[in-house]
Amino acid sequence: MTQPDPQTGSDPANSGGDFHVFDTTLRDGAQMEGLRYSVADKLAVAELLDELGVDYIEGGWPGAIPSDTEFFARAAEELNFKHAKLVAFGMTRRAHSSAAEDPGFQALLDSRAPVLCLVAKSDMRHVEQALKTTAEENLAMIADSVRTGREHDRQVFIDCEHFFDGFRHDPEYATLVVRTALEAGAEAVVLCDTNGGRIPSDITEAVTELRRRLEAVLPRERVRLGMHAQNDTGCAVANTLAAVQAGVMHVQGTANGYGERPGNANLFSVIANLETKLGMKVLPDGGLEQLTRISHAIAEIANMIPDEHAPYTGHAAFAHKAGIHASAIKADPALYNHVDPTVVGNDMRILVTEMAGRASVELKGRELGIDLSGDKEALDRITKRVKELESKGWSFEAADASFELLVRDEVEGGLPRPFKLDTYRVIVDHDPNGATVAEATVRLDINGEHGEAVEHRIATAQGNGPVNALDAALRSALAARHPRLAELTLSDFKVRILAGSKGTDAVTRVLISMSDGEAEWTTVGVAPNLIEASWNALADGLAYGLNRRKPSKS
Amino acid sequence: MTQPDPQTGSDPANSGGDFHVFDTTLRDGAQMEGLRYSVADKLAVAELLDELGVDYIEGGWPGAIPSDTEFFARAAEELNFKHAKLVAFGMTRRAHSSAAEDPGFQALLDSRAPVLCLVAKSDMRHVEQALKTTAEENLAMIADSVRTGREHDRQVFIDCEHFFDGFRHDPEYATLVVRTALEAGAEAVVLCDTNGGRIPSDITEAVTELRRRLEAVLPRERVRLGMHAQNDTGCAVANTLAAVQAGVMHVQGTANGYGERPGNANLFSVIANLETKLGMKVLPDGGLEQLTRISHAIAEIANMIPDEHAPYTGHAAFAHKAGIHASAIKADPALYNHVDPTVVGNDMRILVTEMAGRASVELKGRELGIDLSGDKEALDRITKRVKELESKGWSFEAADASFELLVRDEVEGGLPRPFKLDTYRVIVDHDPNGATVAEATVRLDINGEHGEAVEHRIATAQGNGPVNALDAALRSALAARHPRLAELTLSDFKVRILAGSKGTDAVTRVLISMSDGEAEWTTVGVAPNLIEASWNALADGLAYGLNRRKPSKS
Repeated sequence: MTQPDPQTGSDPANSGGDFHVFDTTLRDGAQMEGLRYSVADKLAVAELLDELGVDYIEGGWPGAIPSDTEFFARAAEELNFKHAKLVAFGMTRRAHSSAAEDPGFQALLDSRAPVLCLVAKSDMRHVEQALKTTAEENLAMIADSVRTGREHDRQVFIDCEHFFDGFRHDPEYATLVVRTALEAGAEAVVLCDTNGGRIPSDITEAVTELRRRLEAVLPRERVRLGMHAQNDTGCAVANTLAAVQAGVMHVQGTANGYGERPGNANLFSVIANLETKLGMKVLPDGGLEQLTRISHAIAEIANMIPDEHAPYTGHAAFAHKAGIHASAIKADPALYNHVDPTVVGNDMRILVTEMAGRASVELKGRELGIDLSGDKEALDRITKRVKELESKGWSFEAADASFELLVRDEVEGGLPRPFKLDTYRVIVDHDPNGATVAEATVRLDINGEHGEAVEHRIATAQGNGPVNALDAALRSALAARHPRLAELTLSDFKVRILAGSKGTDAVTRVLISMSDGEAEWTTVGVAPNLIEASWNALADGLAYGLNRRKPSKS
Repeated sequence: MTQPDPQTGSDPANSGGDFHVFDTTLRDGAQMEGLRYSVADKLAVAELLDELGVDYIEGGWPGAIPSDTEFFARAAEELNFKHAKLVAFGMTRRAHSSAAEDPGFQALLDSRAPVLCLVAKSDMRHVEQALKTTAEENLAMIADSVRTGREHDRQVFIDCEHFFDGFRHDPEYATLVVRTALEAGAEAVVLCDTNGGRIPSDITEAVTELRRRLEAVLPRERVRLGMHAQNDTGCAVANTLAAVQAGVMHVQGTANGYGERPGNANLFSVIANLETKLGMKVLPDGGLEQLTRISHAIAEIANMIPDEHAPYTGHAAFAHKAGIHASAIKADPALYNHVDPTVVGNDMRILVTEMAGRASVELKGRELGIDLSGDKEALDRITKRVKELESKGWSFEAADASFELLVRDEVEGGLPRPFKLDTYRVIVDHDPNGATVAEATVRLDINGEHGEAVEHRIATAQGNGPVNALDAALRSALAARHPRLAELTLSDFKVRILAGSKGTDAVTRVLISMSDGEAEWTTVGVAPNLIEASWNALADGLAYGLNRRKPSKS
């Protein structure tokens, strides 16, 4: 996006005043342990990032990783970005060759990506130990690679690996690397804290000193720098902000901070901070309010549990325990939120807890689209019931769907339940050979549209464990009448033995989260018997999900 | 810990050069959604924090939260800290009263905690809207509360809630609040970014300006400030470092960053950064290398999945994908790690050598009084078995009794097992009236003194839930031969669905704690089936307990 540099106002530090948001979710972020994308996943993530409005999307390393080569081939045919440019990552040419003849470099050009991002060494120790070449040849590799890219009409970025370590070790040489790349025509040179060991004061100091050295020999508008931070000190977002405040005009990061070790800078936190804290406009209009949705959608594609506590985008990012402050929050939420949650497409959530008063139940109802302010009696009934249940160990703060079922039961006569349980039986057998089998039988009435019983069913199923078997039996009984059930998946199952109670003799609380691919909801069940508590959470979760999916209800 | 301020070298900014590491895991960290500690959990967490070597442990709010009152009562009897001081959190006295007569304030004194941390308002908008009192009365409340605490020989900290918002809104008044608290004798005044909306440059600017204002009216050594950051911008750790670099001498945070919304500053990241990046010594000798162990142990107690990607302490914090750099990493790991992982008790995963594993097993053996140093083969066998089991989801960190059973099995032919399971069957029935019954039948061989089978038994029992029924059946089968069983009680039962797996279909880990009134021990069981995992933990726990109680064994 084009806008003035925030530090220098109308006199931008960098030519053209261009600022780049550069996403590397699909390249560096894919280094994360346990994370694997299919090519289709990568295409879907790229589309979401373009919807958000990032400027550059680094898609992978064509030529080196076969599925990345395929991704670029398909991207060239299938992706039609509104805003972003696709970037191919690779290395500068090998030592003592020419970029034009280097097969690795050729693969980058073959990818048809309009932008190249080439990794280069800026720390002499790595030049010697990893590249096994000389200081001069390293510079020649960089200059030749940038020029060859430019000759093929590519924008070229240079990623200086281990820049901050190199700059500390030998500032002369590290500066020379950056200067060489800029003089050869690099769009920007990106300073990488590859090992992630820096804190913001280090970044401020190094970027300021580097700029001083470069501006002594280059026109100021040609000193175009970027920042790539890793989170090993827990400071990746802050390091990126410090670099911007010291004059870089290009920030790299990944969706939700995915990446190797403690991850990369969380690009979504960086963007939100740049826009709401530094007053910069780095996304196209309407982008920022997509942040929460896109964060969750990418987590789904990556098959990662969304981080509830992520800044800005987490489900709990703006969740307040109401308690004694509920009325103050109601009067002036701005005093309790650092930004308006809707700015990033998130919501303020009031957690309903034992301390809940009517004010917080009313607020919570409003979140669900149910106005309780006019129905004092219902409000009293709900508040009383919440307190009663919470005192017995229910926890509605983590179980919004159960809370919604409770509220709707009180104000609208309840959501129609798809079935009514008659009996269940669960058997777990450990045989003399050590094998264990779980089997469940459920007997239930299946209800019609208006909650009337229309059919009686018995079904039996086996499972890995007792709750898994119950789930399977229940689905088997309901499958014919509720085919949508197949879309509802169990995404999490938590068991807690309640505080103050004793061992297996105690009250058990079960939280079950389900998803239909669009939304996720959590229900709670509490009982002395773990199976019964699980059953309650399971039955409510399915009832909620089946109602959610009916076109007539939302 | 005593050491010079890192920014001013031998001329510390703050009197005495004292620097405080102040942990609020058990108070502010307990605000985290879905997290609940029992009193026993809190006592265990406090002991771990003291082992780490933090200076202050804020235990809760006695008088306001009944279980916190109980915690302080038990802490006064049961905890014997090597290093830390226990802190009771509370409010300054109410408006228009006196601290001496305020029942809330009296409850703080009754807690017997040697240190008080009192929350105060420093933002006029909150004084008006939440406290509903005047600027002057707010100052009087603070001064009176600090003085009363001091008169009762308590150290007193003042937490200035919403300080940074208040200082931006009205710097005069916010400064006056801090000055009033310091003049009344507060040990330090803690600047809280309560809404968490700040980035490091904000903190540097505000702390610097506040110090300038205070040092104009107070002797420099009396300007003793602290920092409490929340992570809403993803900058809590960096904000804390920025505050230290600007001259605060007291840092607050929580284990693993637990806390409301995106959490508090992760105290473990703060500590590691202060020690390894700023060269400060803030823990007693040997503390820092406990960081990883204590981080994981507290996660287990809190029943939270440890964050694999946490800086410094995460399982993946120093995990490298080998790739093209494998040999370079092996040749000179220092070029690829921002600090030596062993400094914080962690491992570089790619190079997890047999030696590293054996060293920690040997160390753990020594803790149990078993010298493994002379038996290289046993050490190898145990290390291999631990690695194998941990890779399948076992966790010995929180289950010392299971680890001891494993070690003794390898070096001494094993502790004699009181029984050998043949089969079990568990049935849970939910009848048409909604009543639920759990029944378990176990069939087993009872062993004699030397582990030989002497008797075959079948027993059936009912229970509140399936594990309770199993426990009852097992006890019924063993009761005649092992009357001591009656002394062993189940004190905790935790169930964790392992990360990365899906819903009820996943691998389950069960931790069971038992007590015989003298000691408590924990065993672990892992299986896809919850009942089977529970059985394993239960059987090991009873075997351990029965052996423990034999006069011939310890």
